[in-house]
Amino acid sequence: MIADAQLADYFAYLRFPSISAEPARASAMRDCAHWLVEKLGRLGFEAKAWPGDGPPVVLARRTSSAAKKTVLIYGHYDVQPVDPLALWESDPFTPVIRNGLVVARGATDNKGQAACHLLGTESLLRRDGELPVNLIYLIEGEEEIGSAHLGGFLQAHREELACDAILISDTSMAGPGFPAITCGLRGITCLELTVRGPRMDLHSGMFGGAVANPAAVLTQLLARLHLADGSVAVPGFYDGLLPVDPAERARWKEIAFGDQAILDATGSPKLAGETAFTAVERLWIRPTAEINGLTSGYQGAGSKTIVPREASAKLSFRLVPGQRPDDIAAKVRAFLESICPDSVQLEVTYDHGGEPFYADPKSSFSRAAQTALTEVFGQPPALTREGLSIPIVSLLKEALGVDPLLVGLGLADCQAHAPNETFPLEQLEKGIAFHQRVLELYAAAER
Amino acid sequence: MIADAQLADYFAYLRFPSISAEPARASAMRDCAHWLVEKLGRLGFEAKAWPGDGPPVVLARRTSSAAKKTVLIYGHYDVQPVDPLALWESDPFTPVIRNGLVVARGATDNKGQAACHLLGTESLLRRDGELPVNLIYLIEGEEEIGSAHLGGFLQAHREELACDAILISDTSMAGPGFPAITCGLRGITCLELTVRGPRMDLHSGMFGGAVANPAAVLTQLLARLHLADGSVAVPGFYDGLLPVDPAERARWKEIAFGDQAILDATGSPKLAGETAFTAVERLWIRPTAEINGLTSGYQGAGSKTIVPREASAKLSFRLVPGQRPDDIAAKVRAFLESICPDSVQLEVTYDHGGEPFYADPKSSFSRAAQTALTEVFGQPPALTREGLSIPIVSLLKEALGVDPLLVGLGLADCQAHAPNETFPLEQLEKGIAFHQRVLELYAAAER
Repeated sequence: MIADAQLADYFAYLRFPSISAEPARASAMRDCAHWLVEKLGRLGFEAKAWPGDGPPVVLARRTSSAAKKTVLIYGHYDVQPVDPLALWESDPFTPVIRNGLVVARGATDNKGQAACHLLGTESLLRRDGELPVNLIYLIEGEEEIGSAHLGGFLQAHREELACDAILISDTSMAGPGFPAITCGLRGITCLELTVRGPRMDLHSGMFGGAVANPAAVLTQLLARLHLADGSVAVPGFYDGLLPVDPAERARWKEIAFGDQAILDATGSPKLAGETAFTAVERLWIRPTAEINGLTSGYQGAGSKTIVPREASAKLSFRLVPGQRPDDIAAKVRAFLESICPDSVQLEVTYDHGGEPFYADPKSSFSRAAQTALTEVFGQPPALTREGLSIPIVSLLKEALGVDPLLVGLGLADCQAHAPNETFPLEQLEKGIAFHQRVLELYAAAER
Repeated sequence: MIADAQLADYFAYLRFPSISAEPARASAMRDCAHWLVEKLGRLGFEAKAWPGDGPPVVLARRTSSAAKKTVLIYGHYDVQPVDPLALWESDPFTPVIRNGLVVARGATDNKGQAACHLLGTESLLRRDGELPVNLIYLIEGEEEIGSAHLGGFLQAHREELACDAILISDTSMAGPGFPAITCGLRGITCLELTVRGPRMDLHSGMFGGAVANPAAVLTQLLARLHLADGSVAVPGFYDGLLPVDPAERARWKEIAFGDQAILDATGSPKLAGETAFTAVERLWIRPTAEINGLTSGYQGAGSKTIVPREASAKLSFRLVPGQRPDDIAAKVRAFLESICPDSVQLEVTYDHGGEPFYADPKSSFSRAAQTALTEVFGQPPALTREGLSIPIVSLLKEALGVDPLLVGLGLADCQAHAPNETFPLEQLEKGIAFHQRVLELYAAAER
């Protein structure tokens, strides 16, 4: 059961219209940060809202004993805008309970999930008078607009943030009552490819047929990126991929993220991709080659009969654990150069890359979380992946050298980012219980 | 030898700054048209400068006898702009003779070539008192800006323009002293191809790998337009091509339009195209498939990691005699539809087409021209082609039902459209002689 005082705290947190995207909300942002500082201060944390070029960053630390492990919990107090306001059934910043669901902007993302941890800490202290670990809260205010200043903050506060484990609750469970830990994220390599031919656009009647058409060569190069089975044709592309535990993979069939859901979400006529893998596998554990943009010659209305002087493409490759962004860039470049005819000039530019992420489910913190989730929800968590990168994961890992553990407490139908965002009271209660158990179990585990 | 009075007429014609592209030249355009009307009037033509939405069109007719054949000579009195003026060694509209070359804007294109005919007519009349044929001059004033109003004029004046043969001197000889008749022009089919996938651009991390990428499918379709030997892969594309006389083709090797000239003109790293044909053959008698433009997704700086919702391409197919624009459009559409996967939607839009052109060198007018050119230049003309369409050829053929004969009297190094445009006096003299002989020979030929 949730106590009235707990609900009052959660609701107080939800009442701040802390929309980071709207400059007019700056004072609400500051008020929300200071509310967190006061709340954590009352729990015995050394807490401060650090001012900076963006919204303040709340950093709070409670050191119980130098001998204990240190856990950092990341969250964000900023929320998405509320538009379209007309679709809300009640005011977004006046939380109400309907059918066991708390309805408010931020109910799940991320104030509800942060509340699980804050109230869980409070419960532990009330019961034991002390925490089983040293605990750090890092709660920023610009996650919804890209966390532009977080990297600098982490670098400037590395010593105060030093920890043994990082916990982030900002993703979703695999389904109602079905917990999940996100163990992997895909990385990325972004390239631009330009094919150049004649020194200017040519009249296609005067010269068409005698010289290479850069747009045609570009399409011929790009058409060879994939083999008939949908796999990527770049030699060495799949070298060194980390194996995926068959038990993990088998469990994904239970997850309510099937083919029809992808069709509904995208509006694509049909699924496509590597024939040897399911759609979920293609998204989570298979690297890809995608064309993000094409440009060449005439793009206006009607026709212009030219042989364009150049043609270019934006390419991105999603990477999985075992691949490195710069190695993939080099392999793609070598492949394209090896198949490009000498009737054109080819330029391949490496724009940027991001490492894939993998958090070993056998780490002591992950095992503690798996046990805690199993106890609280009555079934072991699915060990899932995401197809995208999460910038804060990379920032935290890079700055602090610790793999964050992603334990989502949201549900897919919580309407995060949409009108009438909800968070079930049951989820809040179980989230509080999870917080207590994971810290206890981790404290008791061998290092 | 050119008489002083002939040169004076030619120079008077050149002095009009009749630049159709420059609105400020409108009165010079009218003056030039009226000069032609007066000149032709003095030669016994019923001549008029017809006003309209564009510059006036000069139409002049001299009927000698209803029993005689009627020849229409097309020309244009407008010229290209003179920029960059600083590169001219003398004033563009003050003709001078340097080293046997007349230097002025329009010296070749098209006033010099028109002067060959006008002065040739005058010589015939002076010598014989009559012309061997009924003669029509059609001299327009907006060829250099696209002849936008000529089609309407031709339709409105079809009866007055009725003729047995049409002669156009607005192209080039095969080389100095080497005459040419342009027997063929390529036609065109212009299409737009759009591949559609998801209903909006997708996050390539969230969905990349599970659905078809329209840009990738587009490149896969376009890469199949050509076979490895450079030929077009569309089934039936080459059906019904008119055969080309091997003797015609053999003669093209003598023409100074070789591989290096194409490389110099285009700046392409290397020639490319159908391996079974020379570059000149690929331009003149082989149909092509060209990509004129590509567009999809993100085209700005840096990267944007999306699966674009759609991708499109502008395509043009140059056609040769025996092909029909709408038939080719249908074949291309059927081919693309047959190879497109059902994971995307394909739309092929037929933008416009233009018929290829072929003037039979065995026609009595062409044979008269070949004999006249052989007599005047001392060697038979090359029977050549052009890779492009010439709009006035299509307009004249369509309106009057007669295949125009293209007998160019310019030379490749006459600097048409460039500073210091020239026309050799020798070319003027031989052009006048050609005019007389072709009309005499055609008059004497069987119908």
